[in-house]
Amino acid sequence: MTQLITQLLKGESAALARLITLVENNSPTVPEVMKAIHKHTGTAHIIGVTGTMGTGKSTLIGAVTRAYRKRDKTVGIVGIDPTSCFSGGALLGDRIRMQDLATDPGVFIRSMGTRGVLGGLTSSIYDVVELLDASGKDIVIVETVGVGQSEIDIAKMADTTIVVTVPGLGDSIQTMKAGITEIADIFVVNKADQPGADETVLQLQQMLCMNHLDEWQIPVIPLSSIKGTGISEVINAINNHMDFLTETNHLRKRRRTRYESELLALIKKKVMHFVLDESRLQGTIESMVDTISRKEMDPHSAAEKILKGILA
Amino acid sequence: MTQLITQLLKGESAALARLITLVENNSPTVPEVMKAIHKHTGTAHIIGVTGTMGTGKSTLIGAVTRAYRKRDKTVGIVGIDPTSCFSGGALLGDRIRMQDLATDPGVFIRSMGTRGVLGGLTSSIYDVVELLDASGKDIVIVETVGVGQSEIDIAKMADTTIVVTVPGLGDSIQTMKAGITEIADIFVVNKADQPGADETVLQLQQMLCMNHLDEWQIPVIPLSSIKGTGISEVINAINNHMDFLTETNHLRKRRRTRYESELLALIKKKVMHFVLDESRLQGTIESMVDTISRKEMDPHSAAEKILKGILA
Repeated sequence: MTQLITQLLKGESAALARLITLVENNSPTVPEVMKAIHKHTGTAHIIGVTGTMGTGKSTLIGAVTRAYRKRDKTVGIVGIDPTSCFSGGALLGDRIRMQDLATDPGVFIRSMGTRGVLGGLTSSIYDVVELLDASGKDIVIVETVGVGQSEIDIAKMADTTIVVTVPGLGDSIQTMKAGITEIADIFVVNKADQPGADETVLQLQQMLCMNHLDEWQIPVIPLSSIKGTGISEVINAINNHMDFLTETNHLRKRRRTRYESELLALIKKKVMHFVLDESRLQGTIESMVDTISRKEMDPHSAAEKILKGILA
Repeated sequence: MTQLITQLLKGESAALARLITLVENNSPTVPEVMKAIHKHTGTAHIIGVTGTMGTGKSTLIGAVTRAYRKRDKTVGIVGIDPTSCFSGGALLGDRIRMQDLATDPGVFIRSMGTRGVLGGLTSSIYDVVELLDASGKDIVIVETVGVGQSEIDIAKMADTTIVVTVPGLGDSIQTMKAGITEIADIFVVNKADQPGADETVLQLQQMLCMNHLDEWQIPVIPLSSIKGTGISEVINAINNHMDFLTETNHLRKRRRTRYESELLALIKKKVMHFVLDESRLQGTIESMVDTISRKEMDPHSAAEKILKGILA
């Protein structure tokens, strides 16, 4: 294990890949690895990219990555697909759009499913981000399909969160209602060559004017991969945001938020493991289900009774 | 509270609505209510309906409900939208397609968001299903957009699970891979008037032939609301499935599975409540985040240390 960690810290992709697999498989060696690498983290700029299906997140990430590679920055990309449990990994498919990057030793790409447990995602994705950071990647991009909790998790994890939308999705109005502005640091209106792009940009800008009187003015950037426009504006916005974070006290705050949410995710996971993997509890649950089935006790009372036994 | 419960047991919609609101708001009176009503549950046939966006779940549910109303059965419908946190309640929009039913006193319709916590969904949806059951509804339909865990939760909760797809979604191959057949009791190919419907039905049937040597042969039913065909086949399939469950020992098994997953969901919720809502823990987490930020300890070690304090 020590050798693998040494190789990771040197930035070797094979070691990185193997350690991520250990995290995915919930290996008992993970805490040891994380303990060893934690002090080597904190240099990567962590960028979250979220948006609904079909907004072209992968195209954006591919373009951003190529731009950073031209600037000699190394990039780690991790795609999380909260729908992969049954619907088949959409992000895996998208990796095809990044195939030119897959052979670049300065780029590391990995897709992760959530294995049916959205809660499980959170704690292991933090580990993967720490691994990419410790491996010396300058930029770590975390991509997720915007479904409920996953967007909030990404925003808590990232230094800079990019929300991607497209013209005519009807998203602008809905997101305004729902408060996605609270997680976005940068808005990208992708497929800006399509009709309605200007209106979408304008709507978002107007909405941001109303909602935000903050120090950071959230930019709304039209991007068109057909026209080849917008990508340098996106890179500038990311860099400006990082400057803003560093110059103010916000970077420290964001990192604290990340550690706090990781800590809570780990506590949740460990507590549930303790509660549910206790083999003695299996019998208790079985017999309680019998009692509930016979209508002698309701589920709430049964849960209360089991808990009193554990947390006495 | 006693009066509300009495009114619920008489089937009064106003009482049902108020009690569901209590569940949604996590009222401290919920355990008391559930305790009182549990022995009055178990008569409803619980039908889960799942499928990706745009497959016409609401149209199907509307048609099924109208068919049951003709047979003088009362129906409760609860829609869960795991994406509602940010994307705006898709299922709320769909209620428009059921507006004729909203004025029928024999039908009760309610949409629930997940409030950003997919874990939180599970425990309260069980309560809502129990409330609908106790109110005397013959049929309780639980609708959810098929995203990851929500499909599995629905299948664990329902007596009969209907998976809805449409021609040309490319779903048939993907779902085969991903194992959705393990949760489906009935497949409905909706919009069967569209091109490719026959192929989709055939593909699903062939796949089911290969995968299932079970006592219950999963039917694949083409449904077209334009042509007005298929709905009586769906109703027959649901009734046949219920007969199958009752004649074999499967109904008892399914109900046990439901109680078990409800119990686990409640234990999770209560444990997390105990762990995270302890005010003394807030200070510990704060200071641990400091320690992690200073790289003096990694998150895994910190979580371990906090847990040792709780579960000593």
